[in-house]
Amino acid sequence: MAPQYAPSLRSRLPLVAFLLETIFILLFFFFVKIEQHESDSKLFIRSYAEFQDIHVMIFMGFGFLATFLVRYGFSGSGFNMLLAAMAIQWAVLMNGFLLPQRHHRRGIHISMKSVIEAELCAASALVAMGAVHGKTNPVQLLLMALVEVTGFVINQWILRTLLSADPLYSIMMLHIFGAFFGVMVSWVLHREGINPKHEKEKIDRSTGLFAMFGTLFLWMFWPSFNSALVPQRLEKELKLTVIYGTYLSLAVSVVMAMSVSMLTSSTGKMNMVHIQSSALSGGVAISVAMTAVHEPWIAMTIGFCAALLSALGFQYMKDHMLFAFECHDTCGVLNMHAIPGILGWFAHLFLRLASSESTIAVRFAVYHICVFLITVCMSLVMGTATGLFLKWSFWRPQQDRKCFDDQAFWEFPNLVVRV
Amino acid sequence: MAPQYAPSLRSRLPLVAFLLETIFILLFFFFVKIEQHESDSKLFIRSYAEFQDIHVMIFMGFGFLATFLVRYGFSGSGFNMLLAAMAIQWAVLMNGFLLPQRHHRRGIHISMKSVIEAELCAASALVAMGAVHGKTNPVQLLLMALVEVTGFVINQWILRTLLSADPLYSIMMLHIFGAFFGVMVSWVLHREGINPKHEKEKIDRSTGLFAMFGTLFLWMFWPSFNSALVPQRLEKELKLTVIYGTYLSLAVSVVMAMSVSMLTSSTGKMNMVHIQSSALSGGVAISVAMTAVHEPWIAMTIGFCAALLSALGFQYMKDHMLFAFECHDTCGVLNMHAIPGILGWFAHLFLRLASSESTIAVRFAVYHICVFLITVCMSLVMGTATGLFLKWSFWRPQQDRKCFDDQAFWEFPNLVVRV
Amino acid sequence: MAPQYAPSLRSRLPLVAFLLETIFILLFFFFVKIEQHESDSKLFIRSYAEFQDIHVMIFMGFGFLATFLVRYGFSGSGFNMLLAAMAIQWAVLMNGFLLPQRHHRRGIHISMKSVIEAELCAASALVAMGAVHGKTNPVQLLLMALVEVTGFVINQWILRTLLSADPLYSIMMLHIFGAFFGVMVSWVLHREGINPKHEKEKIDRSTGLFAMFGTLFLWMFWPSFNSALVPQRLEKELKLTVIYGTYLSLAVSVVMAMSVSMLTSSTGKMNMVHIQSSALSGGVAISVAMTAVHEPWIAMTIGFCAALLSALGFQYMKDHMLFAFECHDTCGVLNMHAIPGILGWFAHLFLRLASSESTIAVRFAVYHICVFLITVCMSLVMGTATGLFLKWSFWRPQQDRKCFDDQAFWEFPNLVVRV
Repeated sequence: MAPQYAPSLRSRLPLVAFLLETIFILLFFFFVKIEQHESDSKLFIRSYAEFQDIHVMIFMGFGFLATFLVRYGFSGSGFNMLLAAMAIQWAVLMNGFLLPQRHHRRGIHISMKSVIEAELCAASALVAMGAVHGKTNPVQLLLMALVEVTGFVINQWILRTLLSADPLYSIMMLHIFGAFFGVMVSWVLHREGINPKHEKEKIDRSTGLFAMFGTLFLWMFWPSFNSALVPQRLEKELKLTVIYGTYLSLAVSVVMAMSVSMLTSSTGKMNMVHIQSSALSGGVAISVAMTAVHEPWIAMTIGFCAALLSALGFQYMKDHMLFAFECHDTCGVLNMHAIPGILGWFAHLFLRLASSESTIAVRFAVYHICVFLITVCMSLVMGTATGLFLKWSFWRPQQDRKCFDDQAFWEFPNLVVRV
Repeated sequence: MAPQYAPSLRSRLPLVAFLLETIFILLFFFFVKIEQHESDSKLFIRSYAEFQDIHVMIFMGFGFLATFLVRYGFSGSGFNMLLAAMAIQWAVLMNGFLLPQRHHRRGIHISMKSVIEAELCAASALVAMGAVHGKTNPVQLLLMALVEVTGFVINQWILRTLLSADPLYSIMMLHIFGAFFGVMVSWVLHREGINPKHEKEKIDRSTGLFAMFGTLFLWMFWPSFNSALVPQRLEKELKLTVIYGTYLSLAVSVVMAMSVSMLTSSTGKMNMVHIQSSALSGGVAISVAMTAVHEPWIAMTIGFCAALLSALGFQYMKDHMLFAFECHDTCGVLNMHAIPGILGWFAHLFLRLASSESTIAVRFAVYHICVFLITVCMSLVMGTATGLFLKWSFWRPQQDRKCFDDQAFWEFPNLVVRV
Repeated sequence: MAPQYAPSLRSRLPLVAFLLETIFILLFFFFVKIEQHESDSKLFIRSYAEFQDIHVMIFMGFGFLATFLVRYGFSGSGFNMLLAAMAIQWAVLMNGFLLPQRHHRRGIHISMKSVIEAELCAASALVAMGAVHGKTNPVQLLLMALVEVTGFVINQWILRTLLSADPLYSIMMLHIFGAFFGVMVSWVLHREGINPKHEKEKIDRSTGLFAMFGTLFLWMFWPSFNSALVPQRLEKELKLTVIYGTYLSLAVSVVMAMSVSMLTSSTGKMNMVHIQSSALSGGVAISVAMTAVHEPWIAMTIGFCAALLSALGFQYMKDHMLFAFECHDTCGVLNMHAIPGILGWFAHLFLRLASSESTIAVRFAVYHICVFLITVCMSLVMGTATGLFLKWSFWRPQQDRKCFDDQAFWEFPNLVVRV
């Protein structure tokens, strides 16, 4: 094959996908049943609605958020769909094996709860994908997603087993885990050729609106995302607080994102990509802190600070990461997920320390710090290992010139016709 | 009027639409009441949510799926909205007359159930529209949609009256009925001039994403589409199975659609249009088979096979249909609805035969084959008749050059301004 | 700063937004609590679903409806998000102070009901924004939105206090209030330079589809918009009537919008912008009349007439308003909200007169006319005052040349790269 074309994945992707799907179907055949005891309850109606909100966020929200690159829209939404569909199947299995529901004797039972958890695991893989978006081919992405989900579920298992962490609390580390994982993969896969700035790494009027679209779906349904796993026994005290808190935090962070973006621009103009990402930071921050937030104004303050930090990060830290550390982060997941996540983690710590007596507070602080360190270490180590594995040229990464370009993977019949 | 312009519909469409709307309002005046007995039940909340999911699929899903043609986006979404709005009104009336709810004495009572059924009938008309999309004007489409709905409701009436078919089972033939109906209309209306390939029949980066959008809405809400009509008495055993089965089947079919599309391409690249259609085939197949699918892995296997067949059909059969049979099928409804529908029909037959004792199995097989034959015959006959009726030049079809082009029907103020 | 650039808002918008957000957070700190008594009821599930439908309409529907201008899409969706997020926070406070829930002793309690009401108030501000869209900068829009919400809440307070108006009835004047408010602001801010027709005030294939998108979200979820505030005690008799009535009215108005648009066009072609707006007029009209509409055919007739008037208004009255009164109305809110609203008001009056005995009928007529006059007067007066305030050059409006152009407010990195 002539070197000016992107290497064909015809002998890689279909094989890997067939193989994985066959394995998945076999595993489902042996282990997975449908949980039959939830259908007639009021609970099911609500769970199904929450599941759908999250479903829309995963496929529509993340999918269209990734269409902002001017020549990479098909890949952005298409690969997102491929990855999420695979990651969900894998996460149902992994969750079932490692984190079984208490009242089940044998096998894995699909229920709304298990599906929602699987979608949240898929979300952490999609966060990681954001960092390497445009510089990896779909086979690499697929393998990365499966390893990421595995790592994230193992991390949850460690937190729940060693530290007796609350399930809600451990799954909400997804932003921090996914972001650091993705950034490490991107750092290991660093390409000399696409620095400092690839000419196709930009938006235009249409792709900016498509990305707005994904942003809005994520932004609108985030309250469901955060509240979906609140267990029934905490429903009365926690669920509403989470819903209204997330709602208000996001409302403040969109205002702040626009303001900071304009304030820090030399021409006094707003940057669409920064705004789209920073507007969501309030949702990330509150998701980590939410069990400790009991007042609307605290949620709003967290949203305020998260958008401030995130927007400043986009303006000043993103390029610094690239030039100083050779770490290219396409969707800015570090500023969109990691930094607000860490802010939320600090807010959680601070709120607990402020409201507890000293012995409990110290014990919580130790536990809280351990959770953070374990998650970050797991994420960094597994991200590095995954990066090294994906560097293998057997996976046929596209050339530098073909980065951020759909033509490496998609037929464009119109171009054929025109010639 | 000079022949280089598309013939004006000014004297056709408004007249037909006014007339039909007036008749509809009169019929509603005489026959239709609002059902008042459902409001305070838990059931209503769920029905309303399911109705909305289907509503979104009909208007957003089908509407944007039809925007993929590069110069036909306004017509794709606009005519879809027009047709669906009319078809729903007509289907409420037809369903009320021919398939009345048991407990109503007189007149037609609008309820969530009747509206959901009307939207499913509209869906079958929109499937049919897919085959002739771009080659017919809105008056033709409108008349076709109303005839199609009439035929589909009559078909249901025959199945329920003669064969005592289950309502859920008979309405799920909508894909098969709609697809064959549309293909026959397209075959009768065949135009020499737009063969072998019209230059405007292609996608670009934007329209591909708009279509992705419609695809995703259909894909995400398909579990509600399939489960909405599961009757209350079967709720406990069937509803959850249908929801999770559809969900998993679709997850597998999107992976398979991409793999097969890449595998069968000579350049190892994926085709966006094929993927969008084939990714949905799992939902179609499972909808026909769903009352017999009780295990997740069976649903996944059906999704696997449906996407495989559908993607192969797009790659090899679509052009063959065009050249060998002069049958042009714009959206590929044959590969997207008919083939997966037939696969689902076979799966249903096979699963029932495998699980029943022999006398029941044979009886079911005869019944199942009769349902299929009646539906296909009705669909082919009515499709042919409709095609002949629409061929009448009184309806002013656009010229060959103006096919797949919005400018035949839509003002473009910007073009006026630029001149 | 050289005059060829749009004046920078760097020293205005961030300051105003920081200040307002800080004030809001302080007010929330002192006054706002989360209502804790709704979580375990069936009611909450339904309210949350309705809230989400309205949430989608506000951010997705209005946001993308405003993207139709060919070079103003970022501003259309971005400023909509900014305004709505601020207006909601402010409306929660204003509603809490002026229109407290009966059973609360002190402070403002956030509940689904209060959030839904806040979103409806934000909707009235977004209607007003439609009239000045493209000719004002985001600081002006932000201030206008907050004044509009204040005025609208005061108007509700007057109607409820002086005339004992029903809350549902008074909040549904939002279309009339918002439209007249916006038109007055636009009239006062009239610019000589952008008459008769700005060259950037047009659509293209992409922006037309993005706007279709917003239209569809508004169109599909309008039944929830109208029914969300129906109080529980009227649930049985009114809620279903409102849902089905709105649904049917909208189905008829989309058919009529297309027909009239084609009939009144000299070339027999449809106008996308007119259709998108007129298709929604049925929802506006029915929202004002809904408590008096008890039969499906009446709702359909109202939808019929609303779309007829609205489409005729777009074709003939919009330009007349511009040339005769120098009143430029970007999104045609007069034809989309005011005229259908007034039609609904008349229908309401007529239906009540026809069904009541004479003394009650006369009393209702007086009350109904008073409500209308108070609302229109409030709206006109406050709109004029707001317009005069916003005319102050301190707010740095963009030049005439930069109207309807994103480049005044948004960075376009791609253009920088290309140079």
